[in-house]
Amino acid sequence: MSKKYSVAVVGATGAVGREMLKTLEKRNFPVGSLKLLASARSVGKTFMFKGDEYFVEELTENSFAGVEIALFSAGGNISKKFAPLAVKAGAVVVDNTSAFRMDSEVPLVVPEVNPEDIFNHKGIIANPNCSTIQMVHALKPLHNYGRIRRVVVSTYQAVSGAGLKAVEELLEESQAVLNNKSYERKIFPHQIAFNALPRIPQSGGIEDGGYTNEELKMVNETKKILHDDSIEVTATCVRIPVVRSHSESVNVETEKHITVDMARKLLSETPNIVVVDCLEKEEYPLAATASDRDETFVGRIREDKTVKYGLNLWIVSDNLLKGAALNSVQIAEVLISKK
Amino acid sequence: MSKKYSVAVVGATGAVGREMLKTLEKRNFPVGSLKLLASARSVGKTFMFKGDEYFVEELTENSFAGVEIALFSAGGNISKKFAPLAVKAGAVVVDNTSAFRMDSEVPLVVPEVNPEDIFNHKGIIANPNCSTIQMVHALKPLHNYGRIRRVVVSTYQAVSGAGLKAVEELLEESQAVLNNKSYERKIFPHQIAFNALPRIPQSGGIEDGGYTNEELKMVNETKKILHDDSIEVTATCVRIPVVRSHSESVNVETEKHITVDMARKLLSETPNIVVVDCLEKEEYPLAATASDRDETFVGRIREDKTVKYGLNLWIVSDNLLKGAALNSVQIAEVLISKK
Repeated sequence: MSKKYSVAVVGATGAVGREMLKTLEKRNFPVGSLKLLASARSVGKTFMFKGDEYFVEELTENSFAGVEIALFSAGGNISKKFAPLAVKAGAVVVDNTSAFRMDSEVPLVVPEVNPEDIFNHKGIIANPNCSTIQMVHALKPLHNYGRIRRVVVSTYQAVSGAGLKAVEELLEESQAVLNNKSYERKIFPHQIAFNALPRIPQSGGIEDGGYTNEELKMVNETKKILHDDSIEVTATCVRIPVVRSHSESVNVETEKHITVDMARKLLSETPNIVVVDCLEKEEYPLAATASDRDETFVGRIREDKTVKYGLNLWIVSDNLLKGAALNSVQIAEVLISKK
Repeated sequence: MSKKYSVAVVGATGAVGREMLKTLEKRNFPVGSLKLLASARSVGKTFMFKGDEYFVEELTENSFAGVEIALFSAGGNISKKFAPLAVKAGAVVVDNTSAFRMDSEVPLVVPEVNPEDIFNHKGIIANPNCSTIQMVHALKPLHNYGRIRRVVVSTYQAVSGAGLKAVEELLEESQAVLNNKSYERKIFPHQIAFNALPRIPQSGGIEDGGYTNEELKMVNETKKILHDDSIEVTATCVRIPVVRSHSESVNVETEKHITVDMARKLLSETPNIVVVDCLEKEEYPLAATASDRDETFVGRIREDKTVKYGLNLWIVSDNLLKGAALNSVQIAEVLISKK
């Protein structure tokens, strides 16, 4: 009988935690025992996993005894405090927060891009930011072939990236706007319904030069994942009234000429990328149809002749799956494949 | 007594036509007599203008007798057929369609940018595409100061650009999605509610290289308005679930260094531009607050250090006002100012 693992999900009640459970089940991850951990106020909630009911337990310093794999998605501060404790207890942590991503001792991994980095871990492996994952997933084959020099990206990000309460706020506020009623916001500083907010996260995280930390994550994480500090990235991150799946308009300059046909071929040959690219048939990646799907969808592939060698791309993927839960579980899968 | 003009509005019942009437009234344009022209099926509809009721008349070849200024916004084919007839009858046409924009005999004008071109008209003056107007409005002072070499723009465009029926579809479909009901679309090829469609217009208009004609309008009209064929523009145009006001993420490369402070100063000194740019106070341009406003709003101004001299900007304006009706009326105002 093949080995099964003792798995803990930290932040099991959140938008990403719920998807982690579904993903573990759907991909038939070899779960021997399962612990659902969250804050005290979620204790007693139950979730189904493979036909069994699991109770949420309170996350404490002693939660990790016997745990082999811990998937964290409960915010950076929780990871900073509890991930080292989980490692000390013998677990390998796959962390979906930004807590350790830029730590030089921590691999930052998209399994289709840099799976080999997983085995350099010292207990913690970081899952990149959602908007970065889908972008580097699509950029990797283009970089391998034509060496990317510069990326200008503008995002169209879904509210689920800000959590379940943000989804609730979008839906309730949309209803209020449609009924011409007022609405008291709790999550976003401005109306998100029927609007576009050029500001992620919705509060805090302002960095030098007026960039948000979401924007700088795309810059710095891309360099780290692709192991190439010479790739220049400039980003503008925008929240739009979409529940799920991020879209990205990505302009790429390369060292070598990549034709549209070659780009399509390179992307089509990349695992878990689907090229959807026929304007005549109204085929292009869409947030509405990418949701609940595992793949990264790429379309609107056009040569950009305003630079020597350039491409424009439209990249869409489910921010809760490839952008978070799925990518974390994929990391765990690679990890156990060599055990 | 100052001169008053005989004005015709062609396409008076459309999204832009209605705003033209409101704008003529609000800006106290010297209207002596007013003709509201539309297709046969709108005949009998009435609109109020300065307290008087006006009946919509059918647009025919004989509609323009005595008309001095004709504002057209009823689609390119209507303009192609009827604008020359209006000119023949003695009117000056301000055309809000794409019919004549790239005609070398027709000035293409944003009054804050190239007002002098108005006086070179041979009967027709073209109003640029909505997404182009707000962009060049903001780019002009930067170009004057630092000479723009290249622009990478991604748009977040409102559905009202596709007409009143598209607005209806967004609102009805949003309601259907919120109620988990199905909805039969008539305008957009895919769901627009809670989605992002990288495709404008929503059908037709596919050009060489996989670009849409909305995207190429931004390329070609920018060069024409700024009188500079050497400015390179590459665009990705996207419809998002917003009723009114387009947002644009614009990356600019210049020949000369423009600091953020200098960019703010140059933009602030430009007529009808408002700089809204303080992340700490959650101040940035927003579609929801730009709607029904005359100005172009610019914020998220950041230096882009991935090129020698670069800037990122977030530009928002009401697509029906500065992007269409207001710009047309402003053109007419400049026109009569020298009569």
